[in-house]
Amino acid sequence: MAAAAAIHLMHAAVHAHVHLLPNSKAANIQHKFKSNIELLTGDGIIPFAVELVAKSSMDMQPGKICRVIMEITRAFGSQGMVDGLYHELKVLNDQYLSSAGSGCYENYMITDEYICKKKEGELHACGAACGAIMGGGTEDDIEKLRKFGLYVGMIRGLMMGKSYYEPGIQEKLEEFNGLAFKVLESFRGKKNIELISSLVEPCPSYN
Amino acid sequence: MAAAAAIHLMHAAVHAHVHLLPNSKAANIQHKFKSNIELLTGDGIIPFAVELVAKSSMDMQPGKICRVIMEITRAFGSQGMVDGLYHELKVLNDQYLSSAGSGCYENYMITDEYICKKKEGELHACGAACGAIMGGGTEDDIEKLRKFGLYVGMIRGLMMGKSYYEPGIQEKLEEFNGLAFKVLESFRGKKNIELISSLVEPCPSYN
Repeated sequence: MAAAAAIHLMHAAVHAHVHLLPNSKAANIQHKFKSNIELLTGDGIIPFAVELVAKSSMDMQPGKICRVIMEITRAFGSQGMVDGLYHELKVLNDQYLSSAGSGCYENYMITDEYICKKKEGELHACGAACGAIMGGGTEDDIEKLRKFGLYVGMIRGLMMGKSYYEPGIQEKLEEFNGLAFKVLESFRGKKNIELISSLVEPCPSYN
Repeated sequence: MAAAAAIHLMHAAVHAHVHLLPNSKAANIQHKFKSNIELLTGDGIIPFAVELVAKSSMDMQPGKICRVIMEITRAFGSQGMVDGLYHELKVLNDQYLSSAGSGCYENYMITDEYICKKKEGELHACGAACGAIMGGGTEDDIEKLRKFGLYVGMIRGLMMGKSYYEPGIQEKLEEFNGLAFKVLESFRGKKNIELISSLVEPCPSYN
């Protein structure tokens, strides 16, 4: 529970800070608070989220808790969420500076997928891995569920940011859906697997 | 080592973000990078610092590591550093909005001491407590060293922010110096105590 709450809190902190980034997609929202409040809100939430997980070591195995903290900090750190935000800003800045010709299309598709992986994919992968760690899964279970989380996150990320009718999106969604189902096959017959598989059930919006 | 490095990293992240606060003391510095880079630098450093400590659980007792993480996140969270920064901004804003009469002097002194406690005192207290936890100190040792760290931090904070000749400062410095020495007395005869006590050795600048 603490790990899930921490991931949501860290995600909320990211949203608070994203509003401060000039040229970001969220920069033009109507700001409820001044930038100093938005900055310190995010800065206050991040340590609180980590403290929440660390505190649960009093009831749980502290070794597992440390591992969960590592998973969460990696997902939100400079090689995870921060990397995704940086590349997103870079793309928006490039688009702003030059009207990209059709020749650049493929490059943008790759960058978009990378941003989606860092911002949504690895966030969901982290959540799935944390669940597996806390639930006492084997190393193999943890890695399989991390992959499953990654594909679910990629599907969600692509569906949020893009129209289904944009070129290449439909194929990508079907690819990730297939990969996610493939990972789940090895868990066939295990408890609660229907609950997890419902996250990637054939959905009318893209099937 | 990892805990000490993490505290320094978290402190560096605070400095990166403080430059973004409008009306803060640091807002008028010459910015080497744009605000998006400063924001994401801080956001990347914080998870890295926590990960560094969590990672050391592979060699150390994870229970101790979780406790150290709790100490660090509390010191930098909404009831620690963030609280200090908020009150500092509030004072600066109030001073900007109204020319405070001499009648307000005492209130400002209290607020300054509070800011100093949150920004410097509790940071040093956290460092001392983390050292005591990692070094295998008893609960009593941890609390005593936390107090010692608090007084050392208060002395450093007051000396950084104020002139020694400002009214009330000399008395405050002497008070904290005396309190710090008093805490150390109970450790008399223990190993390395000279090293720690040198932090509050009678200093020519205020004695």
